Amino acid sequence: MNQKINFTPGPSQLYFTVEDHVRTAFREGIPSLSHRTKQFEGIYAKVVDGLRELLGVPANYHVFFTGSANEIWERIIQNLVEDKSFHLVNGSFSKRFYEIALQLNKHPEKLEVPMGQGFAGDIAVPAGIELIGVTHNETSSGVSLPISQIQKLRAQNPNALIAVDAVSSLPYPDFDFTQFDTIFFSVQKGFGLPAGLGVWLVNDRCVTKAEFLQTKKISTGSYHNIPTFLAHSVKNQNPETPNVLGMYLLGEVIADFNRRGITSIRKETEYKSTLLYQALDNHPLFSAFVQDVNLRSKTVIVAQTGEHTEAVTKFLQSKGIQPGDGYGAAKKTQLRFANFPTHSKEQYELLVDSLNEFKV
Amino acid sequence: MNQKINFTPGPSQLYFTVEDHVRTAFREGIPSLSHRTKQFEGIYAKVVDGLRELLGVPANYHVFFTGSANEIWERIIQNLVEDKSFHLVNGSFSKRFYEIALQLNKHPEKLEVPMGQGFAGDIAVPAGIELIGVTHNETSSGVSLPISQIQKLRAQNPNALIAVDAVSSLPYPDFDFTQFDTIFFSVQKGFGLPAGLGVWLVNDRCVTKAEFLQTKKISTGSYHNIPTFLAHSVKNQNPETPNVLGMYLLGEVIADFNRRGITSIRKETEYKSTLLYQALDNHPLFSAFVQDVNLRSKTVIVAQTGEHTEAVTKFLQSKGIQPGDGYGAAKKTQLRFANFPTHSKEQYELLVDSLNEFKV
Repeated sequence: MNQKINFTPGPSQLYFTVEDHVRTAFREGIPSLSHRTKQFEGIYAKVVDGLRELLGVPANYHVFFTGSANEIWERIIQNLVEDKSFHLVNGSFSKRFYEIALQLNKHPEKLEVPMGQGFAGDIAVPAGIELIGVTHNETSSGVSLPISQIQKLRAQNPNALIAVDAVSSLPYPDFDFTQFDTIFFSVQKGFGLPAGLGVWLVNDRCVTKAEFLQTKKISTGSYHNIPTFLAHSVKNQNPETPNVLGMYLLGEVIADFNRRGITSIRKETEYKSTLLYQALDNHPLFSAFVQDVNLRSKTVIVAQTGEHTEAVTKFLQSKGIQPGDGYGAAKKTQLRFANFPTHSKEQYELLVDSLNEFKV
Repeated sequence: MNQKINFTPGPSQLYFTVEDHVRTAFREGIPSLSHRTKQFEGIYAKVVDGLRELLGVPANYHVFFTGSANEIWERIIQNLVEDKSFHLVNGSFSKRFYEIALQLNKHPEKLEVPMGQGFAGDIAVPAGIELIGVTHNETSSGVSLPISQIQKLRAQNPNALIAVDAVSSLPYPDFDFTQFDTIFFSVQKGFGLPAGLGVWLVNDRCVTKAEFLQTKKISTGSYHNIPTFLAHSVKNQNPETPNVLGMYLLGEVIADFNRRGITSIRKETEYKSTLLYQALDNHPLFSAFVQDVNLRSKTVIVAQTGEHTEAVTKFLQSKGIQPGDGYGAAKKTQLRFANFPTHSKEQYELLVDSLNEFKV
């Protein structure tokens, strides 16, 4: 089959080293490796050590593996909320986090603004909120919250835990891990891997909270509650048989990222996003969906393509480019472009040239 | 690395076609395929249709995909039990199913017998039990419950749902799907695939029960509750981004199994297990751990190797054979041998010859 450059924001194009790593994995028997071996513990440790180096994850954070980021939403609510969470909602994914709290019979509250917007001014968090859920990068709308907003939430709500959904922004953002308590991502976006693995980082405050809920006989889930995860992770093990191949590939891609250097990955991300936003700002037919330049995501860029959506999609496909559809109701009027480490400058230049070439 | 024939009961040796299917998957862009495409729906449908053909799954069953079989234990308890489940416990995995019900704040009961044994005579199920959890094949001990026992439970408890853990027995058993309500497996055992995917089959009685719990405002979980799964599965979709590559590989391996024919797979399984049990029964130093021949698993065969465990392990390894360790406390006195479709007759003959050759 004719493969296009895949700009959909997840699952996105594989990181270019993945196929080689898969070949090595088969040669070394990784796909059938038992998760109760020293070799598996080495794979676990390689991911954790690599992430600490790549993202500057401090020692008071623990790293756990789940089936998906959806699962992590659920585990966060089960383990860190007795009754009340508070959610900043500005798109489909931040809303889903809120809804999951409802489905788990908690009493979440939310501050909701329309798709494409952020949260201006001071955010009044209601009394008694145990956890604030923040979606750093709304994959549905291309809005990224400024890191300073998380810091402000932290300063104003020192007693609440802060959970950051960084599903479609990591490894790009340069987070200060003291400003929140748990953060998570899935591997099929910025890390360029096949889907089927979520990565969940929690600090010691989260461990304490989950243990506290357990002493109150509140169910924190079973095989994937935080204390069970922790008891295994200190031995570089996992409670159940995990996606071992996925973990191996993640460790290898993180090592590739570290060799390339996170600074260089960040700079290239910014260069490519600037290219595309400039093209959209100057385009006669299209525009950037997110108006406020301070809220524009560097990693998921949403173009308002209006009535030309179908035509420009076909045109891009003819150039070997697969754009991502607009999300949900915006499917016929927007296109989304992932800007992940796997997308090269040359691919972004081709994308921008193609958009500029497009005529009605 | 020097690869041995892997007889550990999970993750076990890959089915011999898997590496080729992975190569094709990369060629066709499956590892980065969006789960909201027609192509993905085709992959979903191929697994479901293939399973229906392979195992004779009736139309009133639905097929869902999870991260692991551990997750399915949890989802069964959340979705099908308001208060009381009942568990037949005869090893570590059946016990874990019971414990998960406890962790989810239900009030499970159990009938427990020692490792290596089954359940003799009539089983008195307490009043008010909503679901009976049966582990068809105890991977820890090598005991397989006769299918007739499930039928008897069904006849005597028509109002209870019956959940069958077939993690390490499928695709071998010829189940009558009218005799239970939900059954599940993970792909890294009998299906010879990389770990990271659980497969959950539920009938319409399960759907009704989960819907009933929801009307009572009992939490059935969030993205992976039965009604949400069902709303997606009727469109051959999945609630969250699943392990798409794993699902693709499962569909291909099931197609391979169907071409080979389930009857022939079953006959070969029986031939190989007979070979090994005969060798153990006649061996001067070893014996089969499960005494009762009617309870002996055809797919996970446990050898009592006593003080010779370490020596025979090394001897087998020198012949290119990797046995599975005994489970838990039996690690130093037993070995476990998976007998899955991927293990050839020739490999089993080599295993038996090697065991017979072993001298102190």
